[in-house]
Amino acid sequence: MEISKKMQAAQLVARGQIEVRTVDVPVPGPDEVLIRVEACGICGTDVEIRDHGMSGEPPMPFTMGHEYAGTVVQVGSTVDEFKVGDRVASEVHKGCGRCHNCIMGEYTACLNFGNRQKGHSASGMTADGGFAEYAIKHVNTLYKIPDAISFEEAAIITTAGSAFYAIDAMGGYVAGDTVAIIGPGPIGLALTQATKALGADQVILTGTRKGRLEMGKQMGADYTVNVREGEDPVKVIKELTNGVGADVVFDAAGVSNSLDDALDLVRPGGAIVMVAFYKAPVNVNINKAVVRNVNLYTVRGEGRRNVRRSLSLAAQRKIDLRPLITHEFALKDINQAFETFTKRIDNAMKVIVHPQR
Amino acid sequence: MEISKKMQAAQLVARGQIEVRTVDVPVPGPDEVLIRVEACGICGTDVEIRDHGMSGEPPMPFTMGHEYAGTVVQVGSTVDEFKVGDRVASEVHKGCGRCHNCIMGEYTACLNFGNRQKGHSASGMTADGGFAEYAIKHVNTLYKIPDAISFEEAAIITTAGSAFYAIDAMGGYVAGDTVAIIGPGPIGLALTQATKALGADQVILTGTRKGRLEMGKQMGADYTVNVREGEDPVKVIKELTNGVGADVVFDAAGVSNSLDDALDLVRPGGAIVMVAFYKAPVNVNINKAVVRNVNLYTVRGEGRRNVRRSLSLAAQRKIDLRPLITHEFALKDINQAFETFTKRIDNAMKVIVHPQR
Amino acid sequence: MEISKKMQAAQLVARGQIEVRTVDVPVPGPDEVLIRVEACGICGTDVEIRDHGMSGEPPMPFTMGHEYAGTVVQVGSTVDEFKVGDRVASEVHKGCGRCHNCIMGEYTACLNFGNRQKGHSASGMTADGGFAEYAIKHVNTLYKIPDAISFEEAAIITTAGSAFYAIDAMGGYVAGDTVAIIGPGPIGLALTQATKALGADQVILTGTRKGRLEMGKQMGADYTVNVREGEDPVKVIKELTNGVGADVVFDAAGVSNSLDDALDLVRPGGAIVMVAFYKAPVNVNINKAVVRNVNLYTVRGEGRRNVRRSLSLAAQRKIDLRPLITHEFALKDINQAFETFTKRIDNAMKVIVHPQR
Amino acid sequence: MEISKKMQAAQLVARGQIEVRTVDVPVPGPDEVLIRVEACGICGTDVEIRDHGMSGEPPMPFTMGHEYAGTVVQVGSTVDEFKVGDRVASEVHKGCGRCHNCIMGEYTACLNFGNRQKGHSASGMTADGGFAEYAIKHVNTLYKIPDAISFEEAAIITTAGSAFYAIDAMGGYVAGDTVAIIGPGPIGLALTQATKALGADQVILTGTRKGRLEMGKQMGADYTVNVREGEDPVKVIKELTNGVGADVVFDAAGVSNSLDDALDLVRPGGAIVMVAFYKAPVNVNINKAVVRNVNLYTVRGEGRRNVRRSLSLAAQRKIDLRPLITHEFALKDINQAFETFTKRIDNAMKVIVHPQR
Repeated sequence: MEISKKMQAAQLVARGQIEVRTVDVPVPGPDEVLIRVEACGICGTDVEIRDHGMSGEPPMPFTMGHEYAGTVVQVGSTVDEFKVGDRVASEVHKGCGRCHNCIMGEYTACLNFGNRQKGHSASGMTADGGFAEYAIKHVNTLYKIPDAISFEEAAIITTAGSAFYAIDAMGGYVAGDTVAIIGPGPIGLALTQATKALGADQVILTGTRKGRLEMGKQMGADYTVNVREGEDPVKVIKELTNGVGADVVFDAAGVSNSLDDALDLVRPGGAIVMVAFYKAPVNVNINKAVVRNVNLYTVRGEGRRNVRRSLSLAAQRKIDLRPLITHEFALKDINQAFETFTKRIDNAMKVIVHPQR
Repeated sequence: MEISKKMQAAQLVARGQIEVRTVDVPVPGPDEVLIRVEACGICGTDVEIRDHGMSGEPPMPFTMGHEYAGTVVQVGSTVDEFKVGDRVASEVHKGCGRCHNCIMGEYTACLNFGNRQKGHSASGMTADGGFAEYAIKHVNTLYKIPDAISFEEAAIITTAGSAFYAIDAMGGYVAGDTVAIIGPGPIGLALTQATKALGADQVILTGTRKGRLEMGKQMGADYTVNVREGEDPVKVIKELTNGVGADVVFDAAGVSNSLDDALDLVRPGGAIVMVAFYKAPVNVNINKAVVRNVNLYTVRGEGRRNVRRSLSLAAQRKIDLRPLITHEFALKDINQAFETFTKRIDNAMKVIVHPQR
Repeated sequence: MEISKKMQAAQLVARGQIEVRTVDVPVPGPDEVLIRVEACGICGTDVEIRDHGMSGEPPMPFTMGHEYAGTVVQVGSTVDEFKVGDRVASEVHKGCGRCHNCIMGEYTACLNFGNRQKGHSASGMTADGGFAEYAIKHVNTLYKIPDAISFEEAAIITTAGSAFYAIDAMGGYVAGDTVAIIGPGPIGLALTQATKALGADQVILTGTRKGRLEMGKQMGADYTVNVREGEDPVKVIKELTNGVGADVVFDAAGVSNSLDDALDLVRPGGAIVMVAFYKAPVNVNINKAVVRNVNLYTVRGEGRRNVRRSLSLAAQRKIDLRPLITHEFALKDINQAFETFTKRIDNAMKVIVHPQR
Repeated sequence: MEISKKMQAAQLVARGQIEVRTVDVPVPGPDEVLIRVEACGICGTDVEIRDHGMSGEPPMPFTMGHEYAGTVVQVGSTVDEFKVGDRVASEVHKGCGRCHNCIMGEYTACLNFGNRQKGHSASGMTADGGFAEYAIKHVNTLYKIPDAISFEEAAIITTAGSAFYAIDAMGGYVAGDTVAIIGPGPIGLALTQATKALGADQVILTGTRKGRLEMGKQMGADYTVNVREGEDPVKVIKELTNGVGADVVFDAAGVSNSLDDALDLVRPGGAIVMVAFYKAPVNVNINKAVVRNVNLYTVRGEGRRNVRRSLSLAAQRKIDLRPLITHEFALKDINQAFETFTKRIDNAMKVIVHPQR
C-alpha cells in the first residue's frame, strides 16, 4: 500500500487551542510501527492537556490523542511481532526501559517520565498521538485486536485496562468478593464490568447522577446508591455484608469525601484502590485504615499489560465498552467533539474521533 | 425440631469394609453445629481410606465421608454465625489454630494434622464424617448455601474449592491467560470451569478418555487433546500461542509423565500447579523449569477459603458442578455406591449418597 | 512447684484509676498455660485504656498489661508446645480462629475483636493481662525466649514485632533499600534497628526531639533530621537518592502532617507504611500517591508471627531493644511507673514493671 | 582520556579453543557506555560455552566473559546515569524490553533470549563480553560500585545477585527462618552469607567436600553436614527444628538426588528454590511436595535488580565475596586461568582475569 507523505492531524497549537493541520506522516523507528488510525477517544486528560498542559509535554504544536486503534501500514526493521494489515490497539505508556521502575515492570511509574531521549514516551502526552491519520508506536505498547472487537471499542480499551490494573494492584482475584465502586464515570463503569466478569459476588456502585447509575446497573452493578437522593452507601453495604463491609472499595471519583467514604465502606482487612486523580488535598480520617488494617493501593493508567486481559475479556464479551461510546465525530470536527465531551452534551461519555473520515 | 438420639451411619468397620450401623447422634461443642446431612459425595480419597487407611485416622469403627452438605439442626453455645434451619456446605479441613501454618492461614498444611486433641480435624478422615444422618462440624469450616444451589451440588463444592485454591496458589488472576489442564477428572473439569469463569482466553484440556474430554468441552474447554489418539498437546499449545506456551499449566493427573509434559507446555516465566496426588516418584527433566524460570506450586484440598469463592460462582452459574454428578444412592446402598464409583459403572464420575433416604 | 491461690495484680478499678489488689490466680484452659510474670512493659495504649477505655474492654476491675514475659508454671491438658520452666514471650492478640480474617491468618484484624466468648482475646485489653504475678495465655500467642534474652527485653519484644510486621506488610525485603522513618518513638527506633538488620542501605530518621534522634543514631540510623531545628527531610532524602526519593517510608508519628510528609519523601513506585495511630483526621495531598504510584500499607500491632522473627534477631544481637528500657519498677509502684512514662520523667521511654518484686 | 582503537580480547575462535587476539575497541550506542574492564571472573557457564556452546551464541570468533567490572571511559549520547570515571559492576542479562516477560520485569526469562536485533543481550554469551580490555554495556545492566568494594569483588557480584534473586523469588524475607542449603559451590556459599545477612535463625549447609564446608562455616553457616562422611542432613534438620523441617531449602547442587533431598528437608508449607542447573532429568518423589504444600521456585541468573541489593550489602560488609576469589591471572594467561578453574587446582573456586595486566 502506498502511504502518503502528508496527513491531517489535530494539533495543540496554543494553550486551549486545537487545530487540524497538514503535517508530515511520521516514519517508524526500528522497533516501531506506523499505524493508520481508525479511531481515537477523548479522555479527561486530553482536556487537561489542552487547557493546562502536563509535565513532559513536547513543544507546541504537537498532535494530541492517547486512546487510539488502527491498522499497521509499515513496520520497523526489527519488528516481527506485527505485520502490515494487523489491527492493533495501543496503550499510552512506553517506559524508558532503563530506570529502576521500568526494569522492574512498573512502567507507568517510569522515573524518566516525559524524557523522550532516554526512551520514555506517552503518546498524545509527551509525544505525538492519535488524533491524526497516522501515528507511530513502539511495539511494546501494542496488542492485536481480536476479530470480534471494533476499532472504536479497541480505541478505548485502556479504560478497561485501567480497571483491570486497579484490580491487579490490590491482588487481582475478585471471585466471590463484595465490591464497592465510588464514581460512575468511565473508569467506574469499566470497573463494574471488570469485577463482575471476574466473579464478584455483589457490586455496589455509588454516585450522584441518576443516568450514570442506571447505566451502571445495565453494565452489571447489583446495587446502585444515589447519594444525592439521600441513600446511604454505608448502610447498604452493611446490610449486604452482615455488618462487615466490602472486601474491596475502588475510589473512581477522587472528590473531597470519596476516600473518607471508602474507609467507611471497606471491611477490616480489606483493600481500597484509588483509581482517580484527586483535584485537591483531602481531609481523611486515616486512622480508620490503621485500626482496621486496610491497605490503600494506587494505579495510574493501564499498567502491567492489563490491556492484554481487557482485549481478551472484550472478545469473550465478558466486558463490553460499547455502551460507553455515546458520540463519534470526523477529525475535522475535533473541537466539536471536545465540546460535546466537556459539556456532556446529550449525556456524552466517551467521544470517538475518526481520523479517516 | 426433635432430634433423635440414634442415627444410621456408614462406618468403616475393618480395612476394606464399610457397614451401615446404628450409632449415637453426636452432640456439638460450643463452637460447632449439628448438621442433618442431605448429601455426601464419594471421592477417590474415600476409597484410599477404606482400603489402605490414612495417617491420623481414628480407630475403627468410624464414620467416613468428607464431601457433604445439609441443614443446621442445633448450634453450639457460642455460635451466632449460623442458626437452626440454615443450609450449609462444609470444607474438610479444620486447622489446629495453634501451629505456625494455621496461625498464618495455611490450615490445609496444619502441622498437627490428625491430632484432634490439639484441635485439628478433617471430617471423614481423622474424625467422623458425613455418610450419616447427622454430623457435627466447627463453624470455621462452614458456609451458607446460596438458594440457587442444591444440597447435591453443595456437597461436592470442595471440588471447585480445590480448583480455585489451585488458581489462588499461583497468583489468582487468570483473565486473558492461556491455560493448559492435564487430566479431565473431577478436579480437571472443575479447573476448566473455574479458569473460564475467571476469563481465561483459551483453555486446553488434555487427557486419554474421549468421554471425559467431550465433557470438558461442554464445561468450557476451548480445545481438547486426546493423547491416546496421537494428538500432541505441545504442538497444539505452540500453535495457539505463537510458539510461546501456556501461561499456566495445571497437572490434575499426577501420572508418571504429567509433570514432564507440563514443563513442555508452559511458557518461560509461566506457572505450573500440581493439583493431584502422584502415585509414585516421577522422572522429570526439572532443568526445563530452571532455564525457563517456571515456578511450581502445590495445593492439597480446598484451602484459604476458596469454597467461599466457589459457592458464589456456582450461585452466579459461572461454574456448574451438576454435570459431574452421575449417580445417587441411599445411605443403605453405600457399598453399591462405592462400587459404582470405583468401577466407573455407566461412566460414573461423582457419586452422591443420601443419608436421609 | 506449689502455686499459690492468691496473687497481687494491678487492676483498673475505675476510669483513670489503677490499684494493686489481691485476686485469684487464674487457671489455664486446655490450650493455655499459666505464666509467672517476670516483666511487663507500659505502652501508650495502656494509658489510653486507663484514661479512656477501649472497645471490647471487660468490666472493671480487670488486670491491665499487654507487654509481658515470664516462666511457664502450669500447662493446659493439650499443651505439648511448652513445658513447666520454659521462659516465654507473648504477643497480645489471639484471634477468634473462626472469622474470615483469622482463618486467613490476619488475626490482628479479627472481626470478633473483643468477643471473648467467640475466642478472641487481647491480654490486658479485652482480657486480664500481665501487671500481675501470674497470667494465662493461649499457646498460639507464645514463643520460647532464647537464652541470650532477658525477661525485660522479651517483655517488650512486641515493639520489634510491630516493626517487623510493618516491614512484612509492604513486601518484606529491605536489603539495599533507602528507608525513611518519621517519628523516633519506640516503634520508630525499633524500625531503625529492624531495617538496618535487614540490610537497608541508608536509614533516615526524622523527628523533633534531639535526644531521641541521638538515640536513633546509636541504634543504627545513618542520618537523622531534626525538623524542629529547621532541617528539611525532603531535601536530605533527595540529596541521598539522586533526586528520586526513599524506597520505603514508615510513618511512626501519626501526627497531622506526617502522612503528607511521607508522600514527599517516597519515590515513585515506593511504599508507605502507617505504623502509628492518628489522633485526628489529617489533611493530605493524596493525589501525590496516585500520580506517583505509591501504595499505603497499615499495620496494627505485631501480626503474622513477626514476634518469631524479632526474638531470633534479638538473640543474634542484630536488634537490641535494651536501650529503649529506661526505667523499672516493682508492681506495687505501678502508678509511679505510669507517671514516669506519661510525663517522660528522666526521658523515660519504655518503663518495665516487675510483678515478682 | 584517549581511548585506543585496538585492544586485546580473549575470544572463542573454535569450539573448545580460546585465543587472545587484537580486535577493534567497540563503540557504545546511544544508551550504552564503554567500560575499561578491570576484572572478569570465570564461571561454570563459561566452560560450558567454550566446550559446548549455548543457544543464542554469536558466530565465532567472539569475546567471552560475563562477570566483569571496570571504569566508564565513554558514554552514549543519552546517558546521564553514569559519567566517565565511574566504577561500575554489570549484570549479564539485558532483556529485549518488548516481550511479555521483559515488560513485566522478568528480564532473565526474556522470550527473545539471544535475539540481539530485537534488543536482548547477554554479554559473553550472546554478545561480546568482558575478557577484553574494553567492553560495552547498556545502562540498564550497570550499577555504580561503592567505594569500599574492589573491582575483583564487584566482578563476581552476580554470584551474590543470584543468591538474593533466589531469596526474592520465594518471598524475600528470611529473618528468623531456618534455612537449608544443598551444595557449597559459589552460589551455595553466597546463599549462606545472604541468608545470614538477612537474619536467618539457623543456616545448615550440606555437601560432600570438607574444604568447602569449612569455608561455609567461616562464611556464616551455623551447621554443616558432610553427607560423604555419613552425616544425615534430614536428621540434623529435624533435631534443630523440633521435627518440623526447614522453612526454606535452596538446591544449589542440581545433582540427581538433591531435589529429592530438598523435599525431605523442608517443612510442610515451606519453600524450595532451585538455583542450579540440573545436568540430567531427576527421579523425584514429587508427591511429598503436594501432600506437604511445598512450592518450588526457580531462578536463572541475577534477576530483578538483586545486584543492587548485593552491592549494598557488600559495601556494608554484611556479605563478603572475597574469600571466594582464590586465583587471579593476566588476560594473556586466560587458558591457564580456565584450567585452574576446571581442574580446581589448589582448590580453585572463583578465578579472576585481569584484562589490564
